[in-house]
Amino acid sequence: MTQRIHNFGAGPAVMPLSVLEELRDNTIVLGTTGMSILEISHRSKAFDAIIKSAEARLRRLLDIPGDYAVLFMQGGASTQFSMVAMNLMTGSKKADYIVTGHWAEAAVKEAKKVGTVNETGSTKAENFARLPRADELKFDPAADYAHFTSNNTIEGSEWLRPEPEVGSVPLICDASSDFMSRPIPVAKYGAIYAGAQKNAGPAGVTIVIIRKDLLSRSSKSLPTMLNYAIQAEKESLYNTPPCYAIYAVDLVCKWLESIGGLSAIEKMNAEKAGLLCQAIDASGGFYRTPVAADSRSRMNVVWRLPNEEIENRFIKEAQAAGLDGLKGHRSVGGCRASLYNALPKASVEALVDFMARFQKSNG
Amino acid sequence: MTQRIHNFGAGPAVMPLSVLEELRDNTIVLGTTGMSILEISHRSKAFDAIIKSAEARLRRLLDIPGDYAVLFMQGGASTQFSMVAMNLMTGSKKADYIVTGHWAEAAVKEAKKVGTVNETGSTKAENFARLPRADELKFDPAADYAHFTSNNTIEGSEWLRPEPEVGSVPLICDASSDFMSRPIPVAKYGAIYAGAQKNAGPAGVTIVIIRKDLLSRSSKSLPTMLNYAIQAEKESLYNTPPCYAIYAVDLVCKWLESIGGLSAIEKMNAEKAGLLCQAIDASGGFYRTPVAADSRSRMNVVWRLPNEEIENRFIKEAQAAGLDGLKGHRSVGGCRASLYNALPKASVEALVDFMARFQKSNG
Repeated sequence: MTQRIHNFGAGPAVMPLSVLEELRDNTIVLGTTGMSILEISHRSKAFDAIIKSAEARLRRLLDIPGDYAVLFMQGGASTQFSMVAMNLMTGSKKADYIVTGHWAEAAVKEAKKVGTVNETGSTKAENFARLPRADELKFDPAADYAHFTSNNTIEGSEWLRPEPEVGSVPLICDASSDFMSRPIPVAKYGAIYAGAQKNAGPAGVTIVIIRKDLLSRSSKSLPTMLNYAIQAEKESLYNTPPCYAIYAVDLVCKWLESIGGLSAIEKMNAEKAGLLCQAIDASGGFYRTPVAADSRSRMNVVWRLPNEEIENRFIKEAQAAGLDGLKGHRSVGGCRASLYNALPKASVEALVDFMARFQKSNG
Repeated sequence: MTQRIHNFGAGPAVMPLSVLEELRDNTIVLGTTGMSILEISHRSKAFDAIIKSAEARLRRLLDIPGDYAVLFMQGGASTQFSMVAMNLMTGSKKADYIVTGHWAEAAVKEAKKVGTVNETGSTKAENFARLPRADELKFDPAADYAHFTSNNTIEGSEWLRPEPEVGSVPLICDASSDFMSRPIPVAKYGAIYAGAQKNAGPAGVTIVIIRKDLLSRSSKSLPTMLNYAIQAEKESLYNTPPCYAIYAVDLVCKWLESIGGLSAIEKMNAEKAGLLCQAIDASGGFYRTPVAADSRSRMNVVWRLPNEEIENRFIKEAQAAGLDGLKGHRSVGGCRASLYNALPKASVEALVDFMARFQKSNG
């Protein structure tokens, strides 16, 4: 078998090897079904067991209360940007959005097609180099909901502090890039959504956790496929779901359970991010992060080098050394290492070693 | 390896074994990327080659003219029911729908949320047992488009006759369950859409072929993810696409090319359906089809037995004999065998043999 390299990609991203092996081994015949996981009916007993298992594991891992529905959707967080607004902005038709990066802005853009958006706490003037302080956030008590982005994949900041205090207004979170990387108090949220392709599975399925009382807001006039209430009523089986991707989510959750759940993975993630951040901070300014100390993400660590020419050489030589996916997002440049759940600590160690060697030759 | 059984499921459905083997063999490491097909970035060179290859093969197989865009979307045909109406019903806000079955009715339901629907040629009063004759179709020349369903998966009818004559009004087709099973004159259509999980791949990706001049109808006020013009402009990469499912579509198309393309597969499909229909028709009424002779589908062959008790026994004994997926849709009952592209002729022969044995014991 060709060797696997270190994958620091921002998503689709590295997956646990044991999960990939189980997917491979069920590609021709799944268990005793006599068919591939790709061929079984979404109405079959075998798939019913898979989707129920995936939901049950998500509920256990995240300690999701019974008054929340768990949905498996398609279309990524970008589709949720619209669905959140279309389903939930039904009262005052106003919503608060905390603006902390590129994807938060994309969520705002879709919400503005539906109602009035109050942008709050934007740190855009500072290139989103930090999260806003509590005293910079102004929430409207009449808002239909308040929305924030728990991890900013491009800018490298993460809401590791307690959730924004929004009183009785439902708090909605785009958790795409740190979902399942640590425990969160689900009961504080109205809804949480996440594309799976960072920590929870492959591209092609989006997980939505929504408090059931909010389902009554979904209007019958919405497109059926974009209606949370119908998707919840049909248990994500209104039409054919992305069966393979849901199966992969189940296997990823099984792997997470086997290593001790979200508290265990949080420790491992903190350790991995700590290693890399320390290497950056100890480089005497050769590597430097643009992100404020209290806002740095454990999932996506971003840094710059003395100039773009050296950055390009760094990325090229890293690639040649088997360290892939280190180029920062095209909108911001620089370097980025995504350290999602399935990235082994050994990959971070290899990166840190490479960074030291590179600095010695180029510093 | 556990034995593979005969899979007559209506979708997700049987896939070519060579495709499954190639998927399996790239689950840990894809080619020379050092990563799984599930892990590679959708912005990587490797994935760019895959999505471009899938599109090029679709264009070659279906002989798609250059003035049509090919999109890889999510959400199944059910999402297209809404997208077609939201993007295209922008002039007179009227559209014609030929109503030939359950899924056509579902398309009508979504279109009515957007504009005025003229239902034409409905054969509902006859339980959709036939397609309408040309003289039963009344089209509105001022309609924004006319919509039909080329194959009715549940009712077992297929539009094998020439396309409906709608003049200069764009003809839109839900081709989900016979897409890629035979050549079609794409230039006669305004748009064709299909969930992949019958003949083109696994669940999780939806293919849309749309004439480029129609893209100017998409309003900027639409949710971005539901906007055909933006999806076309971004070449299906506005956000993370379902990479694995698109890869599988590319492999299915490669398989189709290797066996001679759509003319070759059409012959094989006609032969398979002929075998089964002959077995039904020659059973002296023990097996009987509810579908009119001129409307019978090659993809989904439906039939009844003398009574429901015998039908249940038939399905149970067939299952025990390794013939899976023969239960008709819950809304209509009876039996159904889906004979999609990847179903081997040997599976149909095994079914026909079983039917003869069953009739001998129960007739």
